[in-house]
Amino acid sequence: MRTRPLKVALLGCGTVGSEVARIMTTQRDDLAQRIGAPVELAGVAVRRPGRPRPGIAPELLTTDAEELAARPDIDVVIEVIGGIEPSRTLILKAFEAGASVVTANKALLAADGATLHAAAAKAGADLYYEAAVAGAIPLIRPMRESLAGDKVNRVLGIMNGTTNFILDRMDSTGAGFQEALDEATALGYAEADPTADIEGFDAAAKAAILAGIAFHTRVTADEVYREGITEVSAADIAGAKKMGCVVKLLAICERSADGESVTARVHPAMIPRSHPLGGVREAYNAVFVEADAAGRLMFYGPGAGGAPTASAVLGDLVAVCRNLVNGGRGPGESAYTELPVSPMGSVTTRYYVSLDVEDRAGVLAQVATVFAEHGVSVDTVNQRGHDGEASLVVVTHRATDAALSATVEALRRLTSVRGVASLMRVE
Amino acid sequence: MRTRPLKVALLGCGTVGSEVARIMTTQRDDLAQRIGAPVELAGVAVRRPGRPRPGIAPELLTTDAEELAARPDIDVVIEVIGGIEPSRTLILKAFEAGASVVTANKALLAADGATLHAAAAKAGADLYYEAAVAGAIPLIRPMRESLAGDKVNRVLGIMNGTTNFILDRMDSTGAGFQEALDEATALGYAEADPTADIEGFDAAAKAAILAGIAFHTRVTADEVYREGITEVSAADIAGAKKMGCVVKLLAICERSADGESVTARVHPAMIPRSHPLGGVREAYNAVFVEADAAGRLMFYGPGAGGAPTASAVLGDLVAVCRNLVNGGRGPGESAYTELPVSPMGSVTTRYYVSLDVEDRAGVLAQVATVFAEHGVSVDTVNQRGHDGEASLVVVTHRATDAALSATVEALRRLTSVRGVASLMRVE
Repeated sequence: MRTRPLKVALLGCGTVGSEVARIMTTQRDDLAQRIGAPVELAGVAVRRPGRPRPGIAPELLTTDAEELAARPDIDVVIEVIGGIEPSRTLILKAFEAGASVVTANKALLAADGATLHAAAAKAGADLYYEAAVAGAIPLIRPMRESLAGDKVNRVLGIMNGTTNFILDRMDSTGAGFQEALDEATALGYAEADPTADIEGFDAAAKAAILAGIAFHTRVTADEVYREGITEVSAADIAGAKKMGCVVKLLAICERSADGESVTARVHPAMIPRSHPLGGVREAYNAVFVEADAAGRLMFYGPGAGGAPTASAVLGDLVAVCRNLVNGGRGPGESAYTELPVSPMGSVTTRYYVSLDVEDRAGVLAQVATVFAEHGVSVDTVNQRGHDGEASLVVVTHRATDAALSATVEALRRLTSVRGVASLMRVE
Repeated sequence: MRTRPLKVALLGCGTVGSEVARIMTTQRDDLAQRIGAPVELAGVAVRRPGRPRPGIAPELLTTDAEELAARPDIDVVIEVIGGIEPSRTLILKAFEAGASVVTANKALLAADGATLHAAAAKAGADLYYEAAVAGAIPLIRPMRESLAGDKVNRVLGIMNGTTNFILDRMDSTGAGFQEALDEATALGYAEADPTADIEGFDAAAKAAILAGIAFHTRVTADEVYREGITEVSAADIAGAKKMGCVVKLLAICERSADGESVTARVHPAMIPRSHPLGGVREAYNAVFVEADAAGRLMFYGPGAGGAPTASAVLGDLVAVCRNLVNGGRGPGESAYTELPVSPMGSVTTRYYVSLDVEDRAGVLAQVATVFAEHGVSVDTVNQRGHDGEASLVVVTHRATDAALSATVEALRRLTSVRGVASLMRVE
């Protein structure tokens, strides 16, 4: 075994960073055996150096992250600060200094992964980011490496633990969105500012990263269609239940039927309760990957949290260090297909529409005509009347999202339609 | 991109080999892009060269596998013949000639993986074997690489598709073992000689490979406790059903509580129908991996078949070729912990025991005394009498397999016990 230790700089020492530091210390001997060289924490960049940080020698702490990232003796920089800046600047400085980088930064990778990959390639260094998607669940490595000889057609899953926790609570207790969010916050499943989770930004960033890898192209977060769960009501959940379905926030990346484009989207959807994703409870994540030869694979596990995310970071750290010891490099960006990202309107999906309508003859015919005029075929209809009003629940067959959306707009304009009580895609 | 193609020798051209050859041809351009160099099928060793092999140029075929494996111009040898010999000799010849090796050979790896790894290390070449366990499901790579910074404590799963198909049919149709096996054979899920599957040899080989990787030690197939499914009866399945359970052939690899040894075992077990493994139908595989930091992960997918296995082989081929193009090597053997493998008797588990007993006063007390004498605590008891006989169903708490097994032997010796109708571990 090589005796000179590999030096690691840790940028950020919050929930994930402190777990990374802890495991690097407690598993020091195992890591050395697995890498073929000892690995040493050489510096930790923090914002508040005065905080107690058990297990980390105080002399390692610095508030000057830029200086630490650029230190010429550092072999690997681990970035667990998150957000676009200063993370991007720090990572680029690390590459300029010749270090390899392990990051959990989904927002940055989804916004500007190409710049990071280019800098890594220029430096002849590694960029690993298993922790950016689905916590400890190995997903990036299987998709970049295990499936590198296959053709991936679809990636579909639950990629955000906070929203799954909220939707699961709404499903099991009948609570409304706000009540379930409050519970998630109280239990630590939702952050003080939950926007990134509940508005779908977090899942959209993950979808962008996975779509790029799956289809060997570039997809950025702003090319991902995004709807959060703030509009999901107790009535939506109850409607899903009546159909044997459950509401989940899904991220879906697909190759188009002609293979000439891709789509990526994040939105709430009804899925059958019997579907494996229907049984994903609490804050767990689960992702299906469908490939030509491999068939349908599923990956399941805790999608967030300090320890699981640290596990993914450490796995990447071992990989990067092995490359440094043995020579060689991990896979770089693979974006040779340059497939365009099609808009949401071109996606084919199914709609669940619950309408409050007047309870009189001819209304069903009017509604049916609107569907027909838009070329949308109806799968099931359920009508229930009460006191001059009726509710009409329609589930469509597959059609383009544009056609389905135009249908709903036209329905809203019918005088016999009092309102759209619930509207959701069905997968 | 490098223009000189990497040359691949394919040893074996059955179900998996022919799929590998097909994908290498149809995905030629994609593979070249992903590798950074073109990759070319330079020879195919077959037993029967006269057979029609669509898509493979006849001049590539040879019956001299040894000559092909040792050809100095070959960069990568893919071995999909299976079995110990001649595969071992061929792989060792490939390493001697400096080639890297991709293999799907679980039997050989589980019997003598150490020899293969040593030969690869000596040659400075790669040995990849994702396809050896669980078909296309990425499991070897996640465990060797993604979890390389974590401490794995347990691997548990359904790793044989044939037996899962048979048990699933027995569960859903009430069929007996032979009837379900006949159906599996007719549908192509079981081979003409199903011994390796139904006697658990196949799952035991996979358990040995996974235990070695999980615990960074060496475990061979003959160190894995093994029971097949040939003794599973319709009565066992019905008994499981009454308890809300389903019978599965599980492979379980565990680190002992004191961390000083490991166990690996394959046997039928009752698991709750609501457990994620309880819902694994037909010939699918699913594997749980439990690690300190990552928590509990699950991997699910088709565990066998030509195309899924070929997907795993091709993923490994891309990885090996990337290493050849970029320099560097994949992970080698990691067996530094040298943990001993403990015998089955030391494993703690639970038993389901269904006894046919005399329907008279005192029998329950006798039976309960036997459990108590062996230090085995009883969880639930159900007794039903009919015409002077009674059936007594006991589910124990956790105890060592040795204690449980001795308890059952003692029960058999009781004159009031007419027979053991059903006996199975509960997980």
